[in-house]
Amino acid sequence: MGAVKTKRMPRAVREQQMLDAAVEIFGQRGYMAASMDEIAELAGVSKPLVYLYLNSKEDLFTACIRREASALVDAVRSGVRTDLPADRRLWDGLLAFFAHTAAHPHAWSVVHLQARTHGETFAAEAAAMREEIVAFVTHLIAVGAREAHRDPDLPEREVAGLAEALVGAAESLAVWANATEGVTARQAAATLMNFAWAGLGDLTQGRSWSPPPAADDVGHA
Amino acid sequence: MGAVKTKRMPRAVREQQMLDAAVEIFGQRGYMAASMDEIAELAGVSKPLVYLYLNSKEDLFTACIRREASALVDAVRSGVRTDLPADRRLWDGLLAFFAHTAAHPHAWSVVHLQARTHGETFAAEAAAMREEIVAFVTHLIAVGAREAHRDPDLPEREVAGLAEALVGAAESLAVWANATEGVTARQAAATLMNFAWAGLGDLTQGRSWSPPPAADDVGHA
Repeated sequence: MGAVKTKRMPRAVREQQMLDAAVEIFGQRGYMAASMDEIAELAGVSKPLVYLYLNSKEDLFTACIRREASALVDAVRSGVRTDLPADRRLWDGLLAFFAHTAAHPHAWSVVHLQARTHGETFAAEAAAMREEIVAFVTHLIAVGAREAHRDPDLPEREVAGLAEALVGAAESLAVWANATEGVTARQAAATLMNFAWAGLGDLTQGRSWSPPPAADDVGHA
Repeated sequence: MGAVKTKRMPRAVREQQMLDAAVEIFGQRGYMAASMDEIAELAGVSKPLVYLYLNSKEDLFTACIRREASALVDAVRSGVRTDLPADRRLWDGLLAFFAHTAAHPHAWSVVHLQARTHGETFAAEAAAMREEIVAFVTHLIAVGAREAHRDPDLPEREVAGLAEALVGAAESLAVWANATEGVTARQAAATLMNFAWAGLGDLTQGRSWSPPPAADDVGHA
């Protein structure tokens, strides 16, 4: 991209291009190894312009985390249609999640791995996104349980725990799927759906697995 | 502890005391905020002795990650008896995991949160432990599937994905359980067992959930 184009482009558009380039470089190289020179070059702008717009490497990274976290949350939310049955909502949500993380592997690396590896400030940005997703999933599970039987014997705390388990499973599987050749978004979503649905499906209908009595546990309180 | 005791105690014992103190302080304060003064004081030794034995804050932290990661892996392994049926093995493994993370919350914070937040070197130490646990869980699931039906139609890749999902769910739930007042190890284990068993139980017996046809998915490839 030439200097003429640089001058004509509105600041907002130019900033998005810088963020596009930064997400790719941060995702590929990692936060520490990523260089502002390389980001500026990929964005087709001068390094001083990146600093002028985004201030510092820290602020640029924070802007990347925020933009990509918000895009991921939006993708999952908009993938789920509330008028469909509970298993279909779960499937659509999982598919939206894995489709997004597969289509944007650098963005996923930025929000999930890089953001959590380079200090507490960045980790807090990623944690805020995670909380939004957990809240959304908690709501989905609670609604599913309410629909399945009018007497809600799935306590609020149990629902919160299940949402944490499901989100943790999805995160872990997305990292693995992106690192494993030939695993598609659809396959990853199907693996987790298979894992989760029979369990969640039974639970939301009031059928649960019973642990052996405590005295019978192998050496644990 | 007085200076006399310090002199009499063998180096190995003294080192373990320093690590005990370091895990507690790193877990409580976080890696950055933890001070070597405070660690030495809690261990009842002088700061120069900590440096003499463990060399630096970085090396001390690495020693903590290694010791606690290895203790967690051992706790899970030794919780599982291979002569019991598959659902019991899963339950015992989960209970051993949550009992250990609940009994040693600072150690869990060190290996799972602190180790992954402060740079790639420490993160790699934690990742090595995680791989061991994933390998162990992969083996458990594969054996369970083989026992359940002689014709193994649960492909290796599917088993690997399920193990990633289960480990991710357990990690996420352990963080939540330790941060949520009144959630016991047994409750956390039961939540994940309920979530996982019906799904895994069905899967290992060759019954799987079927996704709707791809063309019917909501806006994703």
